[in-house]
Amino acid sequence: MPPTAAASAPAAKLSSAAPSQRIWNYSAGPGAMPEEVLRQIQEDVWDCRNSGVGILEHSHRAPVYDKILAEAFADCRAVGNIPSNYHVLFMTGGSTSQNYMVPMNVMPADKSGTADYFNTGHWAQQSIDHAKIFGTIHECGSSKADHYTWLPKGSQIKYSAKPTYVHYTSNNTIYGTQYAPGTEPTPPAGVPLVCDMCSDIFSRPFDVRRYGLIYASAQKNLGAAGATLVIVSDELVKRGRKDIPVMLQYRHFAESESRPNTPPVFSIYAMGLMFKWIKKMGGPAFFEKHNIEKAKIVYDVLDRSSFYKGHAKKEDRSLMNITFRCPTPALDDQFCAEAAKNGLDCLKGHRTAGGMRASLYNAMPKAGAKVLADFMVEFERTRG
Amino acid sequence: MPPTAAASAPAAKLSSAAPSQRIWNYSAGPGAMPEEVLRQIQEDVWDCRNSGVGILEHSHRAPVYDKILAEAFADCRAVGNIPSNYHVLFMTGGSTSQNYMVPMNVMPADKSGTADYFNTGHWAQQSIDHAKIFGTIHECGSSKADHYTWLPKGSQIKYSAKPTYVHYTSNNTIYGTQYAPGTEPTPPAGVPLVCDMCSDIFSRPFDVRRYGLIYASAQKNLGAAGATLVIVSDELVKRGRKDIPVMLQYRHFAESESRPNTPPVFSIYAMGLMFKWIKKMGGPAFFEKHNIEKAKIVYDVLDRSSFYKGHAKKEDRSLMNITFRCPTPALDDQFCAEAAKNGLDCLKGHRTAGGMRASLYNAMPKAGAKVLADFMVEFERTRG
Repeated sequence: MPPTAAASAPAAKLSSAAPSQRIWNYSAGPGAMPEEVLRQIQEDVWDCRNSGVGILEHSHRAPVYDKILAEAFADCRAVGNIPSNYHVLFMTGGSTSQNYMVPMNVMPADKSGTADYFNTGHWAQQSIDHAKIFGTIHECGSSKADHYTWLPKGSQIKYSAKPTYVHYTSNNTIYGTQYAPGTEPTPPAGVPLVCDMCSDIFSRPFDVRRYGLIYASAQKNLGAAGATLVIVSDELVKRGRKDIPVMLQYRHFAESESRPNTPPVFSIYAMGLMFKWIKKMGGPAFFEKHNIEKAKIVYDVLDRSSFYKGHAKKEDRSLMNITFRCPTPALDDQFCAEAAKNGLDCLKGHRTAGGMRASLYNAMPKAGAKVLADFMVEFERTRG
Repeated sequence: MPPTAAASAPAAKLSSAAPSQRIWNYSAGPGAMPEEVLRQIQEDVWDCRNSGVGILEHSHRAPVYDKILAEAFADCRAVGNIPSNYHVLFMTGGSTSQNYMVPMNVMPADKSGTADYFNTGHWAQQSIDHAKIFGTIHECGSSKADHYTWLPKGSQIKYSAKPTYVHYTSNNTIYGTQYAPGTEPTPPAGVPLVCDMCSDIFSRPFDVRRYGLIYASAQKNLGAAGATLVIVSDELVKRGRKDIPVMLQYRHFAESESRPNTPPVFSIYAMGLMFKWIKKMGGPAFFEKHNIEKAKIVYDVLDRSSFYKGHAKKEDRSLMNITFRCPTPALDDQFCAEAAKNGLDCLKGHRTAGGMRASLYNAMPKAGAKVLADFMVEFERTRG
């Protein structure tokens, strides 16, 4: 499969019918998955690829898993157009574990290094906190004082003299901000860019070659919680420390084809199904268009309303997570409760942000955005 | 649910019919799961507990997962009769990650400590290798020179003067040895006993109070790969280092109810189903009897045969993994190939041991042992 196949594949149709016996799930993650993927999983749990053995029961050294893994690697490379000098790793522990693994591997062992971090939200702050024990952390840009309503760009960024790497979060799920294409940070020449792409990976095209390392746990755009995708340059893998436990070294996963021990077989299998689904739909280029259209349906309601107030500044709005509130917290609660009664669930905002949050990841059909927009209009009409 | 409920529950019947469209899977792990559990998973992937949302799509903070998690904790405590001064943790990274986490948490930071390890097989050796960077490792008993055919006991054990802890592997999957009840190592007074119980947990009763820490990845007796059960005394949790990444501290999992970040929801859910199934069947006491009966069916063939040769010494034979070989490696290969043609799969021994290995974990019905024994007899008759 050539790396450009995803971009040229014909776009299939997303089902726009409301799911049978199922509700609209706007969860920020784990979140809604494509129904055709769920149907495939149901089959494979009983008997995977006519082996007479279910996917949960296959050895990670068995021929069936050999194929599933090889396809997952190839499909991931195709979807992400990933160059051959980058490793694709399937790991465990979620994005949070990458928060310490990145500095543990890359920062000098004597803690003399400095890494630059963008503080653009709760998880960005957590990345900083987890990295601190490995050296000096310089906040090269922060919107913390403004409740994370915007993203540092241009002159709002002050890099340190010689950062070991620069870390940023491409999409901030809790506050609903996202770097628009072309506005992402550009580190000083020669400094690796590390990105927490957990909540918007493969929701639009991006150029892997800009990055030293990208990490994303599966449960938003890549399937089921339990696996974490890491895309890392060969250079960074080689540079990694060797005096830490081997299970915490990227090279160990690179050398063992992400099978240093029994991997989370099911979550990697599910991620593989998601890669196939993304490819089939038309790849990240299809989803960029699709996600812009979906988000517009909801943002248009916000922009026309004097009842709802969006959290993020317009230019930094996320296509993945739309954050807004009613005039009062009591109305926020009413909104969520009535939405749930109407089969629109998981709209409550994160506890650190309040208000509402609607997550519209790749798997959310356009009908899901429309249903939400209609509900918002109706709620405003009766309560506004 | 009182902690003794498992022991007093009536024993349900294990299905003894050959699985429809499915084959006999003797994989050492990931391995066969109970068919009623697989059927439940198939339903829940689409819609879990009438929520209208599948198990893969539920937030780890959602009410449905709150219940699943609470039940998994309670059922695990009931099945294992786990005292209240022990924590039950659901982690990721497999047993191999515990190989470094145990010494990382418990050994003194200045590497001045000594830990005693039993070297009884491939995974025991790996435990030793992973622990070495945290201090001195003393091998207090080893059968390595004898190809791990037996288990050190009594005068074969030489503890060091003041070990920080003693580590052993209760069942050695590759070599097919297992400490029989009552023969397990007893460390010097006051020294915590750490056990890799990965391949025989809940296959028979054991007294948690003898241990400081027990770990077991899920994919043998507890469901799907991707979650790791840790049972650890409150004392060891409190003693753990605080200068390591929080995600590597047991206390962080204890304090957050195993939700320090997005956990491997599906694997923990599947583990919860396995706890319920173990309870329903009659608990570890039922499975001890059941597993003795199953293993006897196969060992009886070995003992009556001059064709097959068992690897493990009789007194240390495993009830979980039965290891044996034909007179020649060529016949071993024939055995595995013909077995596979007859719907008996994954009988090839681990690459480090050769020969055959039949894994008969809790989920393997007695009929699976009988089918294998019959095949062995027939193969011997025609080739012997």
